[in-house]
Amino acid sequence: MCGPIRGLLLALVVEFGTVVAFVSIPRLTWELGEVELMQFHEPGISNYSELLLNKYQDILYVGAQEAIFALNALNISQKQLEVHWKASDETKADCIEKGRSKEKECFNYVRVLQHLTYDTLYVCGTNAFKPTCDYVNKKSFKFLWSEQDGRGKCPFNPSHTYTSVMVDGELYAGTTYNFLGSEFIISRTYFSSHLRTESDIPWLHEPNFVHADVIRKTPSGYKSDENKVYFFFNEVSVEYDFFFQLKIPRIARVCVDDQGGQKILQNKWTSFLKAKLLCSQPDLGLIFNILKDAFVLRHPRSKEPVIYALFTPQLNNVGLSAVCTYALSTVEAVFSRGKYLQKFCVDSYPKWVIYHGEVPTPRPGMCINSETRAANYNSSLDLPDKTLLFVRDHPLIEESVTPIGNRPILVTKDVNYTQIVVDRTRALDKNFYDVMFIGTARGTLHKAVQLEKGMHIIEETQLFRNSEPVQNLLLSSKKGSKFVYASSNSGVVQVPLAFCRKHSSCEECVLARDPYCIWSPFKAACVAFSEALNCTR
Amino acid sequence: MCGPIRGLLLALVVEFGTVVAFVSIPRLTWELGEVELMQFHEPGISNYSELLLNKYQDILYVGAQEAIFALNALNISQKQLEVHWKASDETKADCIEKGRSKEKECFNYVRVLQHLTYDTLYVCGTNAFKPTCDYVNKKSFKFLWSEQDGRGKCPFNPSHTYTSVMVDGELYAGTTYNFLGSEFIISRTYFSSHLRTESDIPWLHEPNFVHADVIRKTPSGYKSDENKVYFFFNEVSVEYDFFFQLKIPRIARVCVDDQGGQKILQNKWTSFLKAKLLCSQPDLGLIFNILKDAFVLRHPRSKEPVIYALFTPQLNNVGLSAVCTYALSTVEAVFSRGKYLQKFCVDSYPKWVIYHGEVPTPRPGMCINSETRAANYNSSLDLPDKTLLFVRDHPLIEESVTPIGNRPILVTKDVNYTQIVVDRTRALDKNFYDVMFIGTARGTLHKAVQLEKGMHIIEETQLFRNSEPVQNLLLSSKKGSKFVYASSNSGVVQVPLAFCRKHSSCEECVLARDPYCIWSPFKAACVAFSEALNCTR
Repeated sequence: MCGPIRGLLLALVVEFGTVVAFVSIPRLTWELGEVELMQFHEPGISNYSELLLNKYQDILYVGAQEAIFALNALNISQKQLEVHWKASDETKADCIEKGRSKEKECFNYVRVLQHLTYDTLYVCGTNAFKPTCDYVNKKSFKFLWSEQDGRGKCPFNPSHTYTSVMVDGELYAGTTYNFLGSEFIISRTYFSSHLRTESDIPWLHEPNFVHADVIRKTPSGYKSDENKVYFFFNEVSVEYDFFFQLKIPRIARVCVDDQGGQKILQNKWTSFLKAKLLCSQPDLGLIFNILKDAFVLRHPRSKEPVIYALFTPQLNNVGLSAVCTYALSTVEAVFSRGKYLQKFCVDSYPKWVIYHGEVPTPRPGMCINSETRAANYNSSLDLPDKTLLFVRDHPLIEESVTPIGNRPILVTKDVNYTQIVVDRTRALDKNFYDVMFIGTARGTLHKAVQLEKGMHIIEETQLFRNSEPVQNLLLSSKKGSKFVYASSNSGVVQVPLAFCRKHSSCEECVLARDPYCIWSPFKAACVAFSEALNCTR
Repeated sequence: MCGPIRGLLLALVVEFGTVVAFVSIPRLTWELGEVELMQFHEPGISNYSELLLNKYQDILYVGAQEAIFALNALNISQKQLEVHWKASDETKADCIEKGRSKEKECFNYVRVLQHLTYDTLYVCGTNAFKPTCDYVNKKSFKFLWSEQDGRGKCPFNPSHTYTSVMVDGELYAGTTYNFLGSEFIISRTYFSSHLRTESDIPWLHEPNFVHADVIRKTPSGYKSDENKVYFFFNEVSVEYDFFFQLKIPRIARVCVDDQGGQKILQNKWTSFLKAKLLCSQPDLGLIFNILKDAFVLRHPRSKEPVIYALFTPQLNNVGLSAVCTYALSTVEAVFSRGKYLQKFCVDSYPKWVIYHGEVPTPRPGMCINSETRAANYNSSLDLPDKTLLFVRDHPLIEESVTPIGNRPILVTKDVNYTQIVVDRTRALDKNFYDVMFIGTARGTLHKAVQLEKGMHIIEETQLFRNSEPVQNLLLSSKKGSKFVYASSNSGVVQVPLAFCRKHSSCEECVLARDPYCIWSPFKAACVAFSEALNCTR
């Protein structure tokens, strides 16, 4: 009964009958040592916060406390290059004098690590509360030492959240903007040219940034008029009143072609709009309003990218986490057709209500595109004052971005999730499965997949000793060498996407419900699906 | 080491060191049959919803579906009297014709059961969606058959919440007011005289009522000018905006001496004010906004009554419950000095903000007292229009009633609490202890006590088969015969406040940490504290 092509099909059949509200217990658990994991850790170095892959050369770059490493991406225990990047004694002394901790804060923590060109990395570090950026030659692994002010690209305080993405040589960053961490910015930097969020009429309310990504309509490298950068963050609610300060998960987007305004919104985004990311289940009173991480899943076979977002509740959180997914078209519909919120003051209390008046043309916050060009607006610099003034005062769209299926695809109890990456893979039944790899606050990795009868946590793998939280995840989905790289305060771990060989019988192989695995009667072993294809052909 | 006077003292010493956030696991659990519990159940009768005690004659009155019983309060398995009270065939037919369920709804469910006089009970029932009230002679246990319209005193729908309290022969009730259950009322009825809440400018927003009680400044029977009736309920928030409809726990109060207004607020309360009952722990993100039950603890030794309130969260409730306590003086300060909320409309959206204008004299919503009398307002009928108009438009106080210690005294996980009663008892160490008896949704009773090092759930007792929820609790704190009576859909159970004799050794007796129990070396048994006092004297 347990032939080669029955793997996942049978798994679907034996799946339990009803959709459960909470999926918490992984079917299999691998403790440390039970499965082979490559590791990297450099004595004396901590805070392995940044991971960057060069998939053509199989190099994993790692940014840590005062150091950057280049590792063999196929075996990260093999260090290839390293460079140290310390804050100067003078900068450190200044940091300590300003009351910051000598033991923890007054170091240079790498916070931006991006490919600038084929042979150059762009890196920023907190540099003992004096953020600095620089270039690293990928071959020599040496700094150019053309130190640049890192303000607006990198936080001052290593404990502050931040995000960045490099698009066509321009750095898009979301971070705190001053020493105290009381100012916030979403910026774009390209040598000496800057674009930023408006701060006088604040567009951001105590945000913490979790992710940023670019979504292109056309292949990378070609500058389309519809390339957009999306920022994911939480901020303090302006539109709700609550018992106490309520946090709201947001998605914001800016256009890659934005040049700022001519007089109004000079050097500011003319295309900044934000909306609420909804992840709730009102019938159960579940409301997940703290965004922990986001991942944009692109696949040649899918008609549009899907956003996977990881949440936890702010309220009554006794160990709940959830994953909601969003179609990019839903996000775009909200930004391009949603109503704007407008601030009124009632007896000096602000109240944000739907704006019902006339909306200027071109629609405020939209990218320059063929339509605006037809109306002779060829650049954001040409946009009329009315549109720009409206953008300045109405950064928030009333409509929420609702999840696919209007509810979370996964809700778990008694585990705190921290990071997510998602791989789309084709299984034996010729269907595509989205496999989620989710890092936890206790140093493990959950692997979850949506099967026909509901969400299923296939396995949990212990990655770090001492239950250290997973701080960063990076997926390498290169054919033939797929890995998840996970980092924590103490090191980096390289995890294969599946441990098929650990399932020793056909039944175990099938019951594992792992779309990557298949039972091979030829080898009498549970093997990777790709491997099985090779051997049966 | 285990002498007679060491019971609770030792218990305090061995109490664990730190205050835990969640107290969930009872130290002892008594399954059905393990302890002796008197029971009452009449074949064919269900929904034992109302409990009323005559402590002078040791009678427990029980109101159920189409029947009222008088039981021996010292042993409720001894039925003394009963009377059946069915909806007429005509009324039932009418109920069924209106689309209500023949099997469940079109019966007469007793919902009000109160002492009217020494020899008369006042009872109301849903009467197949045609609420009716009547009098029952306590001796003959027969109806007077002077059927009165029960509208405004008793709900139409047996599944709707309700509460009532009898004060000096006047019935105070909180209930739904129409067939559909879309109108709500807090009323007072005294023969043909009625007083009620304003409905045009609604003072109540989809409330569900959980409790009502009178608090007198002077001994019962003497009509003071400061006797007040307090209502406890949840209603839909007007003051907050949230992702979805937010419920708010409220305390409202009216004055016993209220006569309504002369022209404005004629036959309406002139003394109705409501405020939010706060039960939250912002540092942990815990917010308990669904009030399940309340209990007013009075004790000759305490300077003021204390309100015990049982909560559960509306949001992300995966089995959380909490108890908060409130000092009556805090409640009174909110009503007598708090700022009023005022409704504004912003672009047709209502927004409630603090009223900063001039407040009329006498202060709106206050009882007639010596101060108002000095200003020649001897009755609410004398109150000036300005005060009454202000009362009509400002029923809600901005300030919240904050709990003692600013946080819950008990937070539990994985159990849903339904009902609470509290007994104050003196233990061996001469201190008074408030012992909470809390009914659960799985048919058990928790007994919890605040010890020096934190809250402690002493024991859990299974009361009902099939894990039926505890629907009602009544405490008899008569000296020498203290019991908790618990009712469910299927019957009534009588529970002694302690099972001292079940602790078979001195150590067990001490470790039970039960303030009612003490080890008696004379009897070589764990005995009730009162019993021990008798035998040592």
